[in-house]
Amino acid sequence: MYSSLWTEKNMFLRIDKLPVELPQSPEIDPIAARNVQELMGGRFGEMSTLMNYTFQSFNMRGRDAIKPYYALISNIAAEEGGHIEIVAAAINSLLNGPREGFDADGNPLEAPFKELPGGTFGGHYIAAAQTSLPVDSRGMPWTGDNVFSSGNLILDLLHNFFLENGARTQKLRVYQMTDNPAARAMLGYLFVRGGVHAMAYAKALETLTGVEMSKMLPIPNIGNAMFPEARKMMEQNSHLKLYRFSQSDYSEAADIWNGTAPAAYTEGVGTTDQFEFVDAAPDGGDLTHLAGIASSFAPNYAPEEIMEIANKLYQKAKS
Amino acid sequence: MYSSLWTEKNMFLRIDKLPVELPQSPEIDPIAARNVQELMGGRFGEMSTLMNYTFQSFNMRGRDAIKPYYALISNIAAEEGGHIEIVAAAINSLLNGPREGFDADGNPLEAPFKELPGGTFGGHYIAAAQTSLPVDSRGMPWTGDNVFSSGNLILDLLHNFFLENGARTQKLRVYQMTDNPAARAMLGYLFVRGGVHAMAYAKALETLTGVEMSKMLPIPNIGNAMFPEARKMMEQNSHLKLYRFSQSDYSEAADIWNGTAPAAYTEGVGTTDQFEFVDAAPDGGDLTHLAGIASSFAPNYAPEEIMEIANKLYQKAKS
Amino acid sequence: MYSSLWTEKNMFLRIDKLPVELPQSPEIDPIAARNVQELMGGRFGEMSTLMNYTFQSFNMRGRDAIKPYYALISNIAAEEGGHIEIVAAAINSLLNGPREGFDADGNPLEAPFKELPGGTFGGHYIAAAQTSLPVDSRGMPWTGDNVFSSGNLILDLLHNFFLENGARTQKLRVYQMTDNPAARAMLGYLFVRGGVHAMAYAKALETLTGVEMSKMLPIPNIGNAMFPEARKMMEQNSHLKLYRFSQSDYSEAADIWNGTAPAAYTEGVGTTDQFEFVDAAPDGGDLTHLAGIASSFAPNYAPEEIMEIANKLYQKAKS
Amino acid sequence: MYSSLWTEKNMFLRIDKLPVELPQSPEIDPIAARNVQELMGGRFGEMSTLMNYTFQSFNMRGRDAIKPYYALISNIAAEEGGHIEIVAAAINSLLNGPREGFDADGNPLEAPFKELPGGTFGGHYIAAAQTSLPVDSRGMPWTGDNVFSSGNLILDLLHNFFLENGARTQKLRVYQMTDNPAARAMLGYLFVRGGVHAMAYAKALETLTGVEMSKMLPIPNIGNAMFPEARKMMEQNSHLKLYRFSQSDYSEAADIWNGTAPAAYTEGVGTTDQFEFVDAAPDGGDLTHLAGIASSFAPNYAPEEIMEIANKLYQKAKS
Amino acid sequence: MYSSLWTEKNMFLRIDKLPVELPQSPEIDPIAARNVQELMGGRFGEMSTLMNYTFQSFNMRGRDAIKPYYALISNIAAEEGGHIEIVAAAINSLLNGPREGFDADGNPLEAPFKELPGGTFGGHYIAAAQTSLPVDSRGMPWTGDNVFSSGNLILDLLHNFFLENGARTQKLRVYQMTDNPAARAMLGYLFVRGGVHAMAYAKALETLTGVEMSKMLPIPNIGNAMFPEARKMMEQNSHLKLYRFSQSDYSEAADIWNGTAPAAYTEGVGTTDQFEFVDAAPDGGDLTHLAGIASSFAPNYAPEEIMEIANKLYQKAKS
Amino acid sequence: MYSSLWTEKNMFLRIDKLPVELPQSPEIDPIAARNVQELMGGRFGEMSTLMNYTFQSFNMRGRDAIKPYYALISNIAAEEGGHIEIVAAAINSLLNGPREGFDADGNPLEAPFKELPGGTFGGHYIAAAQTSLPVDSRGMPWTGDNVFSSGNLILDLLHNFFLENGARTQKLRVYQMTDNPAARAMLGYLFVRGGVHAMAYAKALETLTGVEMSKMLPIPNIGNAMFPEARKMMEQNSHLKLYRFSQSDYSEAADIWNGTAPAAYTEGVGTTDQFEFVDAAPDGGDLTHLAGIASSFAPNYAPEEIMEIANKLYQKAKS
Repeated sequence: MYSSLWTEKNMFLRIDKLPVELPQSPEIDPIAARNVQELMGGRFGEMSTLMNYTFQSFNMRGRDAIKPYYALISNIAAEEGGHIEIVAAAINSLLNGPREGFDADGNPLEAPFKELPGGTFGGHYIAAAQTSLPVDSRGMPWTGDNVFSSGNLILDLLHNFFLENGARTQKLRVYQMTDNPAARAMLGYLFVRGGVHAMAYAKALETLTGVEMSKMLPIPNIGNAMFPEARKMMEQNSHLKLYRFSQSDYSEAADIWNGTAPAAYTEGVGTTDQFEFVDAAPDGGDLTHLAGIASSFAPNYAPEEIMEIANKLYQKAKS
Repeated sequence: MYSSLWTEKNMFLRIDKLPVELPQSPEIDPIAARNVQELMGGRFGEMSTLMNYTFQSFNMRGRDAIKPYYALISNIAAEEGGHIEIVAAAINSLLNGPREGFDADGNPLEAPFKELPGGTFGGHYIAAAQTSLPVDSRGMPWTGDNVFSSGNLILDLLHNFFLENGARTQKLRVYQMTDNPAARAMLGYLFVRGGVHAMAYAKALETLTGVEMSKMLPIPNIGNAMFPEARKMMEQNSHLKLYRFSQSDYSEAADIWNGTAPAAYTEGVGTTDQFEFVDAAPDGGDLTHLAGIASSFAPNYAPEEIMEIANKLYQKAKS
Repeated sequence: MYSSLWTEKNMFLRIDKLPVELPQSPEIDPIAARNVQELMGGRFGEMSTLMNYTFQSFNMRGRDAIKPYYALISNIAAEEGGHIEIVAAAINSLLNGPREGFDADGNPLEAPFKELPGGTFGGHYIAAAQTSLPVDSRGMPWTGDNVFSSGNLILDLLHNFFLENGARTQKLRVYQMTDNPAARAMLGYLFVRGGVHAMAYAKALETLTGVEMSKMLPIPNIGNAMFPEARKMMEQNSHLKLYRFSQSDYSEAADIWNGTAPAAYTEGVGTTDQFEFVDAAPDGGDLTHLAGIASSFAPNYAPEEIMEIANKLYQKAKS
Repeated sequence: MYSSLWTEKNMFLRIDKLPVELPQSPEIDPIAARNVQELMGGRFGEMSTLMNYTFQSFNMRGRDAIKPYYALISNIAAEEGGHIEIVAAAINSLLNGPREGFDADGNPLEAPFKELPGGTFGGHYIAAAQTSLPVDSRGMPWTGDNVFSSGNLILDLLHNFFLENGARTQKLRVYQMTDNPAARAMLGYLFVRGGVHAMAYAKALETLTGVEMSKMLPIPNIGNAMFPEARKMMEQNSHLKLYRFSQSDYSEAADIWNGTAPAAYTEGVGTTDQFEFVDAAPDGGDLTHLAGIASSFAPNYAPEEIMEIANKLYQKAKS
Repeated sequence: MYSSLWTEKNMFLRIDKLPVELPQSPEIDPIAARNVQELMGGRFGEMSTLMNYTFQSFNMRGRDAIKPYYALISNIAAEEGGHIEIVAAAINSLLNGPREGFDADGNPLEAPFKELPGGTFGGHYIAAAQTSLPVDSRGMPWTGDNVFSSGNLILDLLHNFFLENGARTQKLRVYQMTDNPAARAMLGYLFVRGGVHAMAYAKALETLTGVEMSKMLPIPNIGNAMFPEARKMMEQNSHLKLYRFSQSDYSEAADIWNGTAPAAYTEGVGTTDQFEFVDAAPDGGDLTHLAGIASSFAPNYAPEEIMEIANKLYQKAKS
Repeated sequence: MYSSLWTEKNMFLRIDKLPVELPQSPEIDPIAARNVQELMGGRFGEMSTLMNYTFQSFNMRGRDAIKPYYALISNIAAEEGGHIEIVAAAINSLLNGPREGFDADGNPLEAPFKELPGGTFGGHYIAAAQTSLPVDSRGMPWTGDNVFSSGNLILDLLHNFFLENGARTQKLRVYQMTDNPAARAMLGYLFVRGGVHAMAYAKALETLTGVEMSKMLPIPNIGNAMFPEARKMMEQNSHLKLYRFSQSDYSEAADIWNGTAPAAYTEGVGTTDQFEFVDAAPDGGDLTHLAGIASSFAPNYAPEEIMEIANKLYQKAKS
């Protein structure tokens, strides 16, 4: 149990859930995994949205006087933490589906990874034991030069608006490069949640400049509702909700996130057209569980051994 | 108020506090700010510790069976979120101390930033309005290639043990390059908390391999207690505490973080020598507040204007 | 003389003029030169504006049907060619002003470059013989990853609008870091011409989306007219003119660049408030001439020798 | 019509033509497109030749006294602008040929880009809507570190001579990696024009040093005439012509580019063996036109809509 | 015995042998070649081990007083020189096996390299004429940022211990990605020799700290003896021998490399369990000889010509 | 004479000597150290010459038939190993001269490194304990993309000729940026030895193409003899000698390195004008010894402790 003092304590907390549950990939799909890496570590990937808003919130000047903007950016930054997590989970799922005739615990002498498809990202196998890395679809690392934090509020918001729309465009394209349900469930989720962020920055710019940025959405001008994975979320009004990712702070974001959503945004889906600031985080889904895989020595060559050690540790601790 | 359901919800939460309160820099100190950037965006900076442990936790295989290790790494990852925050706060403090005869809101025609000391990092002024960036002391960006996530538990833990000791070494050197209290308060704090993480990985390795890694500490073999900023924290037993940065998860880390600390680690400071897993996050300190600065157009050229807009927004929202 | 057929010929032409004449730097100023490099090779430097618009024009789909946009972007790309030239000229001027007691043709044994100010960019002296390079203020090279060419017209225009405003912000900051007239003349020129480009992209977006982007300008909200180097150009209506940088093409840009300029844009300066598409390129200024410098072996160790060879070549060719 | 004053105006002009007309690719060929990227953004790509000569011309010292060399380098720089254009056109052609059973405007839900060949460069699809980018065949960006501008005339010319021969070698190899006529037409064109540039730098070095560099050509020692796409141009004496890419300047390059060509260079092809400085630019070819492609949202999701807007703009402007 | 004069001479010597003879690749195998590049130019490749130990030896402080450690690191650095050589030889072998229906000296017009498998690294063909480069499996260059040289002896040794184990893990994975004997012979050799280096750093750390690092080996916990290519070497006690790669120096490494090897390390293979410092370098194998290849112009378009020239040179020198 | 057994052994050997003895730096000189880093890790630094020739030798095709060229490149590669060593030694000397009032073993609390000059490279203090790193003068790492290995012998030799001359130009400039004798002794040494390599590649090109490349030297056209540190070596005919860096191989390089040197090369210095292939390596000088430095924890915080351990190890080994 946590005392009410908890909320006065600090900084980044974490809960062992995924933002949304993902289906298992029906097969090992290294090419889709590689393409999805663009959404993790590319210029428009989730590492970029996470770190842009995080640094902007660290660096914001006069934050007391401009609290709604500070709260908005800080709070979206926290949600983005869950977005790198779900992109990682999708990549991991794509790299770990069942493969016909593949024995992950097979004899190392038999070259179990010999027949990977052309274009597989070598790092997924050599470095990361079939899991995600903070790199883009070229395998090039995410870089801090992707962070824009100018200190000028309007320019930072304009950047963020552009960033979200660039990110959406790339996701729409990756969607058309794979029909793997593990990838598409993640993409549909991010179409909607990224759409919320684009709209939030549009609304913030509108309050400051009077320019109706929200009329420019969606970019590209193809709505989310035609994608079943996104539509399902819109039917639950997810596109209208900004969640509070803090138990103690950031409620001022509600000063920006309110009012009636444009028809081009709701596409007539959902039970309302009112923006809602939700004073809690969304329910999460179960984390993807990755089995041990002997041929990659992960977590160990003979996974049962390391698990036995851990088990003894438990027993000792409990006794 | 949050219902008990909260803890079943998701992912990354955030509270508007610093891990520890920092003194204000007594003067503008761009050279110290540049050196401290190494601890943010360098290979051994806090971006690296944060992202290594975050990806290792995303990617861990067989996590149910090896829960204490999963919980340990995941939980330390969450604490690292606060570490990039405090390094950013220290940089911002160093770049925003008072400067004799400096009028930040002065006439742009008078070249207010002409007399910066030789070796100032241009990006602090041209890109970031005297605030932090995810770059190292060269100004080169942090890169995802700093992340090591091999999937092999022992190798990942060995990496983390090395990473924490490399990070400590660099911090000890930066400490000797500045006596600015804003930098040193941050450094002292991280000597202790980074020391906890090094010890945690040592203990994890010991449970798995029987090799007494903790006997190798401290690296370099100079203790924390001689540094007043660190000693203050040790007197409150901070070096013995691993905090839980989650309200619902990661309690299994206590299976590793327990027992008696070696004398070389406690240096006789503190009221006990018992490791303690604390079932809550530590109290945080107030965030550094950065004033608006007209000459950098942050948050605006005439800061009062943008603040007025934000104020009206508040009023409207409240009415 | 060129026949009228000339205009049907191809591609990139070049004339040996600077877009505007620059004053000589009153002294050698390596720190200002280093800061100005950000405007050449940084993410928001002129290499970026040049190459973004160039690749967007190469890659544009359906260009016949959307000619005004194609013409606008292609034509601005051509103007940017002159912008990298003027930034190079400013850097070269800053690196080659007179220096008290400095004998550029002095004895190499006497270490003529020993006393460079702290923070001088080594590459200016070791690699480039006191001239410009396609790098930023860190010395890091401009990179093709700065190019955004999504194919989606609205997204590309939004990017360009953001890019121009980011570029303007950085130029305003560099202006405050130096009062060297060689730097400031270039900056004032680019405040105005970059302002034209930002307005052009705003107007293009308005025609496509109906969103009044031009109301957002200037970003930061500090006008150009307060800067004497820019005001001089505004008095000649430069801020209202889009020049045609082609003798045969791109006249359709006039379909976008027309109408009345907002008061916040003209600031009441100039003899009119009407946008004008000028069917010719602007008059240029004389190129900066750089003297040979023996101690850097440029163009030669004993410059008179190489010049003598060139002279003989002339004579032979003429005879 | 342009007045004669035109030639006194400035800097970079542009005409909407390709240096040479390219055939359409008979099929979508992403692998050839990827390989051709090396010739755009690789160390020996056209971005490198363009930017090396451009910066060398910006930075040249004592240019009045060594005019023929200044004119030669400046003028070749201008021609290189057309070379990045033609490489981009070839890439775009390769990425946009017809594909059996491919409906570019098909239903996004049906994953139209699922079956791309292994080794396709993801950036061509995710970032650039099947068009070119300033990257190499790895997808790594062109970098300003590829620019060499030492200020020493002989060293710069030696560099340029090496660069052109390195570029030719890589083009000869790419030729052997594809028989796609869209790629080969571009390659043949550049074999010849790059050959002219290599010869021009050889001749410049010869005038300065007396060393007969032209005897070293061709490197590799395989002539152009055996390649039909190149031979066709040689039959029109293209290998003997240096064109003037300026209406007002650079005529002094004729002092270097004159005399009789070696037999190993002409290979007996063409109607003469005399080098000729042509006082005009070559005739260009029609630009490749790229159709809109809905599945990449370029220029729009429903391309006809954006074209309709542009059309209205035209009508309004004309009325 | 070495002549006493020799030992007063200098620095790096070289002999035209491979550390071990490699079998020829039975076929051209560009994908295996690409994967093996990770072991050359990746973070854990042989370029990294070579350069880490080389710089640590250059930079070591107080080297007279800590001679055994200095000798150990310096000597292993020298052995690593042979390791980049053998990885290069393996890559070259993989890229130059026989290929059915492939005529390397065929007609360039017939696109002999058209049908390369998807995922082939373009640089192997465009830049390097089917040979090795100092890049990783992404094609990204090895970088000096991979070098760690902190000056703190324990930290450097800990780094090296980690580096060797990371390198071993990646090699074990590449082994499972190919069954090509040219790759596997090299891998088996490096399993054993890298294992010697890991053990050497473990033993060095043990002497300094008392922590039994060798008990942690092997990482991953899969021994070398199950791999036939490694076992063959162990049967000759290679895993127990540290060779002296100097005729005059580094014999003090024997102070560290001595004693009895743990059973988990010997796996019962070999004729002894005693570590042995061998006062000579190992016998080498014949270098792989690469035939000229006309279609890549290596060493020339018509290889016989260049060989004829070289032959004449010989004759002239001999006469 | 070398024993016949030795020559059957392998690969890279090493002797604990510097190529030439360096004077101690008379003071701590971090700016000179930073500039000298360009000669280590820059595009034209010794890492580049070492690795270019090393990879070219690994990758050379038809090496038996073109032995003199193979021997020449392989042998120069071996000499370059000593060149990175001497550049490292110069940097280390510059960073470790005596400093007035500086107590390297002082109290860490007193910020002993606070007053470093503006422009000091932070990595020298934070990462490397005042020693060298494989980076350039920006602090950017050396990269494998600096390696050119085309397989075409003439093109590779042309590259090497250009590389050596570019390297010489940069060294001549660094010479003019410092008069520190530790730097200048190294520079004078490399002027001469790099000059030998440039001449060697010129001669190799001449044998293959008949083009008299050696007539182009020196580039820049300023001889070595005016620099006292170089002249001293020329008086010992060092500029005429190519040493054999192997006891068993590479003697065929003598087929290229023979004959009479041009007057512009000898400048009348030395006792002969005949090129000589010396069948042994040159005498080396004593290595620079770096004292332990407590404030950088190198080799340890309390250096005497670690030295005591090493001493015990010795004693034990000897007993």
